[in-house]
Order: sequence, then structure tokens, then C-alpha cells
Amino acid sequence: MIPIVSIVGKSDSGKTTLIEKLLPELVRRGFRIATVKHDVHGFEVDREGKDSWRHKKAGAHTVIISSPQKVALIRDVEKDLTLDELREKLVQDVDLVLSEGYKKDVQSKIEIFRKEKHKELLCTPKDNLVAIVSNQAFDIGVPCFGLDDMKGLGDFIESRFLAARDKGDISLKVNGKKIPLNPFAKGILKNTIRGMLTSLKGCGAPKRIEILVEEDGTDKND
Amino acid sequence: MIPIVSIVGKSDSGKTTLIEKLLPELVRRGFRIATVKHDVHGFEVDREGKDSWRHKKAGAHTVIISSPQKVALIRDVEKDLTLDELREKLVQDVDLVLSEGYKKDVQSKIEIFRKEKHKELLCTPKDNLVAIVSNQAFDIGVPCFGLDDMKGLGDFIESRFLAARDKGDISLKVNGKKIPLNPFAKGILKNTIRGMLTSLKGCGAPKRIEILVEEDGTDKND
Repeated sequence: MIPIVSIVGKSDSGKTTLIEKLLPELVRRGFRIATVKHDVHGFEVDREGKDSWRHKKAGAHTVIISSPQKVALIRDVEKDLTLDELREKLVQDVDLVLSEGYKKDVQSKIEIFRKEKHKELLCTPKDNLVAIVSNQAFDIGVPCFGLDDMKGLGDFIESRFLAARDKGDISLKVNGKKIPLNPFAKGILKNTIRGMLTSLKGCGAPKRIEILVEEDGTDKND
Repeated sequence: MIPIVSIVGKSDSGKTTLIEKLLPELVRRGFRIATVKHDVHGFEVDREGKDSWRHKKAGAHTVIISSPQKVALIRDVEKDLTLDELREKLVQDVDLVLSEGYKKDVQSKIEIFRKEKHKELLCTPKDNLVAIVSNQAFDIGVPCFGLDDMKGLGDFIESRFLAARDKGDISLKVNGKKIPLNPFAKGILKNTIRGMLTSLKGCGAPKRIEILVEEDGTDKND
């Protein structure tokens, strides 16, 4: 499952600026990041009169605009979606989801705190706070990084959320190409294969399972 | 799998206008529709300076803006995605995908043709053309609807693409709630269950399989 980390902080603490500094550090390390921003006031992402705008206005539940470089989607929802629901419905092909805000969500949180702006933290470790970025030291049992220490913060995020990407997981390759699997597909493949293995003698308690399936004769794809 | 129909036609034939007229007819019948528009020139769906725009500019692969009424997403792609790929990556919670254009895609097509604008059709039945909307009659083996006959076109789309929604498919309910399944999940569930059944005596060639699993004792969810 794609890990989720929320950058939280009180108003005007610098959440967007922190994300702007952190993203290039994570991208430089080869990770693909999805960001999520909550907008309680609604938003306008399409322009009046454009074809896609006309589709939406005429009653489309979902409107997609596709180009060779990027794809945009606007869809109706019935309620505010949690980060978990957004990941399930919309997020693919990335290594990490980084949300701005979502302090009430259950996901892991990194709080940005600037002492000249506020007196107290927004979160405690009970809120699933895993790190602080601040110009003030805190001794509450989570690591604290300086406002500009993107290397330290990047190391922390990588080791805590990204290094374990290929552990306890399942991957599938077909004709040498990695096939993306969503959480359900991973679960059913893992559990079915593990389940099938319990019927086979000699498997014991498998820690690592490798399966190779090859067609008979020559490679039909050549 | 969610069906896909493309509204195609030569330039200035009235594709967007047809979609604008067709959408309310389908929505009135209780269907949820996703539309897809191709944009070779690229597009701008977010405004400079907004937080989500700053995320994208700083290197985010995907940016999501979430509100209680709607969700927007912008993501990078490496190439033009086919309608099938767009459906797989992005489309959920709708009954039908209606694309504007995509004449080269393999999906079923409905062509709009106005005799005052063009002399010849864009498609033939070989292009997977399934209907024509026109102010001129065509005798090429597919139904032809008038430019304003949205009831006739709606009936056609409903009977051809939407009535069969629950046939030849798999559905899953857990604790009475329908669980959404993507094409991969549907395929693996269907094929695994069918596969398992081939090992069981008395199944013959199953046309309809119903499975009910209940926990022993009282319902733990009560």
C-alpha cells in the first residue's frame, strides 16, 4: 500500500513552503510523490466555456481531460473523503502520498512549527505525530528537524516510509515488465498463493516465495 | 467493466453539443457518466500561486484537491493514455464512460454528422461504429438517430451498454454492502472461483454461481 504522510501545522506555520522544499529532495532521490490539499471552500479548476467545463455543467459525474503529458480529472463526491479513500480511488503510480493539512485524519503526521508564529504545537505523539520541523527544540519523543534540514527530513521519510517498500510485499512481473498491483490485488494474490502453499508439502512457513512461470517452447512474444 | 462509448465526428460537427444534450437524458435515467476529452495542446486546470499549483511546480507527480463536493486530480503521464488505460487508472463510481473524440481508439463509436457541414462520414462499421446521429439518413447497417432524438439515442445506449451491466459479471457484497471491484479484481475472483469449481464434483459448466459465507454463531458486526 502506498504510504501516506501529512504535513500539518497551525495556520501560517509554513506548510506549503515546507512541501515546496521537501518535494525536490524526495524527487531527487527517485521517488514519485502525490500531494493532497484540502479545500473546504470548493475550487474552480476548469474554465467557463471549455468543452470539459460544458460536460461537467451538463451533468457529468466525472470529467477527464487527457493529454500526452498530463491528465486532469474532476469528479463529484458525496462527502469529504479521507486520505485512505482518496488513495484507494485516485492514487496510482507513486511511492508516497504527502498531504497538506488533514490534522484530523489517522495518518502519520509531521508538524511544522515556527516559534515566532505560535506558542504551542498542534499535535502530540498521540495524534500519530512522527516528527517535527521547527526552529525550536522539542523533547516529546519524536525527531525534530531544522526548518531547512531537508536532507535530514528526507532521510527520515525515506527510512520510515519508503525503504520498506519492497518488504512484506508482493511484486509481479510479466515478460520482464513490472505490473502495478493495487492493495486488493496484492492482498488476494498474496493470500491465495500463501493459501495454496499451505496445501503443498515441504513449504513450511514461507518467508520468501518466488514463482516463475514459463510457456513451453519458444517465446511467443518474440 | 464500465462500458465506454466515443462520440466522434469531423471537426465542427457538434460533438460537444451532442454530449451536452445526451448527458441530461442519461442522468435523468439514473446513470452516472464520466466524460473524457482529449487535449493535444496541453491544458491549464490550476491557477498560478495556488497551493496545489505550487505543489505541482515543486515536482509532485500527482496533485489532488479535495473538497466535500468534488475532487480534482492532475497527474503526469508518460504518453497519451488509451480510453481503456484512463478507465483503469482513474474511473470509479460511474456507469458509463462517454468520450469526446478518440476516433482512433478501439472502443464503440457514435458518429455525429450534419449534412450542411460535411459530405462523408468519418467512420464505417469496421471502425466499431455502432450508431449515427444526423440530419441525413444512412443505410450502412447501424441505427441512425435525429440530431435532437435524445430519447431514441438514450434508449439505444441504455439497451446496448447499460442494461447488461449486471450480466456476465461478478459482484461482491460484504455485510450487505456492495464492494467495488476493479477489472483485475473481478477477473481474478471470477477465474479463481471458476477454477476452484472445476476441482469440485457436480458443478458441471456453471452459468450462475452464488456463494454465501457466514460466520459461526452470532453476527460479530452487531
